[in-house]
Amino acid sequence: MTAPDASRAPVPAGLVEAFWEYERALMSDDVPTLDRLFSPGPTTLRGDAAGLLVGHDQISAFRSGRGGAPQRRVVQTHVQTVDDDHALVIAVTELARGGRGQQTQLWVRTTDGWRVSAAHVSVPAPALDTRIWRLVGDPLVAPVDSGPLDGESVAVKDLYAVQGQRIGAGNPAWLAQARTEPVHARAVELLLQAGASVRGIARTDEFAYSLAGTNVHYGTPPNPKAPLRISGGSTSGSTSAVSLGHATIGLGTDTGGSIRVPAAYQGLYGIRTTHGLASAYGVLPLSRSFDTVGWVTRSADLLGRVGEALLPASPRSAASDLVSVPGLLAIASEEVAQVVDRYAAEHGAMRESWDLSDLPTWLQAFQTLQAWEAWQERGAWLAPRLDELGADVRGRFEAAALIDDARAAAARDVVGRARTRILELVGDRVVVLPSAATVAPLLGESLDAVRAATMSLTCLAGIAGLPAVSIPGTTATGLPVGVCLLAAPGRDRDLLRLAVELG
Amino acid sequence: MTAPDASRAPVPAGLVEAFWEYERALMSDDVPTLDRLFSPGPTTLRGDAAGLLVGHDQISAFRSGRGGAPQRRVVQTHVQTVDDDHALVIAVTELARGGRGQQTQLWVRTTDGWRVSAAHVSVPAPALDTRIWRLVGDPLVAPVDSGPLDGESVAVKDLYAVQGQRIGAGNPAWLAQARTEPVHARAVELLLQAGASVRGIARTDEFAYSLAGTNVHYGTPPNPKAPLRISGGSTSGSTSAVSLGHATIGLGTDTGGSIRVPAAYQGLYGIRTTHGLASAYGVLPLSRSFDTVGWVTRSADLLGRVGEALLPASPRSAASDLVSVPGLLAIASEEVAQVVDRYAAEHGAMRESWDLSDLPTWLQAFQTLQAWEAWQERGAWLAPRLDELGADVRGRFEAAALIDDARAAAARDVVGRARTRILELVGDRVVVLPSAATVAPLLGESLDAVRAATMSLTCLAGIAGLPAVSIPGTTATGLPVGVCLLAAPGRDRDLLRLAVELG
Repeated sequence: MTAPDASRAPVPAGLVEAFWEYERALMSDDVPTLDRLFSPGPTTLRGDAAGLLVGHDQISAFRSGRGGAPQRRVVQTHVQTVDDDHALVIAVTELARGGRGQQTQLWVRTTDGWRVSAAHVSVPAPALDTRIWRLVGDPLVAPVDSGPLDGESVAVKDLYAVQGQRIGAGNPAWLAQARTEPVHARAVELLLQAGASVRGIARTDEFAYSLAGTNVHYGTPPNPKAPLRISGGSTSGSTSAVSLGHATIGLGTDTGGSIRVPAAYQGLYGIRTTHGLASAYGVLPLSRSFDTVGWVTRSADLLGRVGEALLPASPRSAASDLVSVPGLLAIASEEVAQVVDRYAAEHGAMRESWDLSDLPTWLQAFQTLQAWEAWQERGAWLAPRLDELGADVRGRFEAAALIDDARAAAARDVVGRARTRILELVGDRVVVLPSAATVAPLLGESLDAVRAATMSLTCLAGIAGLPAVSIPGTTATGLPVGVCLLAAPGRDRDLLRLAVELG
Repeated sequence: MTAPDASRAPVPAGLVEAFWEYERALMSDDVPTLDRLFSPGPTTLRGDAAGLLVGHDQISAFRSGRGGAPQRRVVQTHVQTVDDDHALVIAVTELARGGRGQQTQLWVRTTDGWRVSAAHVSVPAPALDTRIWRLVGDPLVAPVDSGPLDGESVAVKDLYAVQGQRIGAGNPAWLAQARTEPVHARAVELLLQAGASVRGIARTDEFAYSLAGTNVHYGTPPNPKAPLRISGGSTSGSTSAVSLGHATIGLGTDTGGSIRVPAAYQGLYGIRTTHGLASAYGVLPLSRSFDTVGWVTRSADLLGRVGEALLPASPRSAASDLVSVPGLLAIASEEVAQVVDRYAAEHGAMRESWDLSDLPTWLQAFQTLQAWEAWQERGAWLAPRLDELGADVRGRFEAAALIDDARAAAARDVVGRARTRILELVGDRVVVLPSAATVAPLLGESLDAVRAATMSLTCLAGIAGLPAVSIPGTTATGLPVGVCLLAAPGRDRDLLRLAVELG
């Protein structure tokens, strides 16, 4: 035991040399040396702004992938010696690109020499996180009136017109040729009138044609609750902004899941509104038959208050029986299905079997019509520039270009029949289903299978123009899951109230 | 000594309780308990994004001043036990306002119980640092051409017109009533034509009428090389942005030191140009007789390249004898004078005695005329709003309001005579003097005496319209100092070349 104000023991032999060996290896990106100087095994730790890595394997994979640390020099060191074999070394660094950082390392002398068993690294934040934002301000646009959203701030998806700014749509070439918008999108205007300010313009997947958030030009916004996983999209930047507290309201769009999926992956509340109910004036379209306005928040209460501003008044409906459909749960991964099933059971949902044999056909028709419409909107501009798109979005637009009018018409017929059937199935109940089929996939993981399964769930609201609210849940291992509530068109406010009541 | 992959020892007795006692105290801002749970003495450490605090006293002062930590909950803990009396505890936290943080603590069991001897705390960065920036973008304004500044980014002081944006001048009421600027300020336009982009619009002291950077509305931008000290101003945000690597060029103005002082305090290169030489079109004036365009950078090379874009071509002058004036060094603090004197000696400057007996009169006339002009510019608008200004700026404007035309005319006469005398003294030489009289004052320190001493030095260039370059130096204790080179009007490019050659 140490006296309360004990002076420190001298620096143990060999530690200074090990510290500088590490520093030199870091500056030359000598990964084998860095790997050697970190303790092997599953309890070694390394944390920075992107999250905490646990175990030598995770740390080593991170190092191999990042292509070197920012250049820096050590300007201060402090050693707290515990004993001959243990010492904490705190270093203040000055980065070549500007600013100062700090590094805290616990060094342990092993039979193989000095090793770092835990490291905590801080570097100055950039002016803005360009994975999340294109523009930010304090505020970017001030409120035009006082109202129920006083003090709230909005991250606007880069598909909405903001007066005096361009619409970038997640693509640099589109941004470069875009006009300066003469007026705000209607939804932006209503939020400003309700007292909210615009914090900034947030990243989206290219032309909103993805559920991943992995924009090839600007990077993948962070997912704070699941640091090694994708953000979800296409309302990717707005959602990360709300997760991080950069804004309180993430304004976005949902055509085939672009609000519900990122809300689910990041553990937020989200709503896609009834098709056509909230004005999409001033929003760059992807697929007009399915595009809807939506938003994400960190509380059910605020989700509802935004609804007060953006949705027409509607009478409260008494009917809100919850229904859970085992066939829909079966589409999801086991860990997701468990969370949704438990939520349904806790809130007294009745189980009901649906004939889902046509679901693959419905999904295909939905995707075909969406693609055909997307190509009608963007094809002429995109055709000579397809090779500038990210591979995933490019593949979808290339497939879209091949859909002829006859196939689109046939798909429209199937969608019409599916809509009728879905409206019948939902009736005046509230359906509880997974917002996405899985938890957020790991960064770098293949997304095709995940996308197909998730869209089998999300296309129901897409096809039938239904409102859907996503409520955050958590797996046993602590990962975010979205529980989705679905109801008949126009029942948006019922769902928003239900989200507050059920929690 | 420990085996390389030794499994960890169990968590020592009492540590978990101490950890949670600390966490509860932090959440309730129970400063006495927090003070008790940090080891007493001068070697205790606490670091976060604002810098590393060394010693219990500094840490305790910080806690007492900040008014509580952001609310959070601990979502993960990892303990690395060294022995029964020492353990490292790493906690992942989830902030109530959004995002995740990390905390690393070295706990030591003393005769008084468990104590933290070192802590490293990270929380998510905000969307933008509103002490530095009003608006930022990726970029805010794209280059309009390719040129010698390709790839460079500019932090524009909030006095310059940026097309489509307002000029905020460091004051919220001014910002609220400002018009949208129809065109860029000439300097902004030239930088965009030379290939640079605008990163954003940076904070300034109110109406640029301060040398401190302590804007009462938006806070004091950070000074990364001297974390407990002020940034300097009025080009405060632009300078901090360059220090942190948020931008490579900090565009500002210098009337009585507003480039030289923050450059000196933060260890950057800076230039105030010859009065009238670089276009001030589109810049909100403070005092037209003295206002000049200026900029800060992290290298002499880039300082010069910006000059290529903003300054007219001029023939190279052969004369560049360096002169050092003991009477000017004597105005500075000893630690600053030492650095400047050493620089002068190393570069072969000749010592020369100047008759500085009129300097107090010159300074007073300069300040009087500056104040009178500032009131002519802003008085009508400010008169009903003086109580909305920060105390320091308010005091200066209130004094300015009392200056009648006769006093102003008398001051103008003195300034005219002083200008003639200063031009004679400088001649065709380059004068080496301190950019500011002191190192950056500590946050909260009284600034009146510092301001008076610094302005005795900076007013020479102000009065005579001279160009001045500030070169970064360092005190024995590692604090930034500015070494100023002063020359005759129009010799800006000579000074920029000299800064590159002398380093």
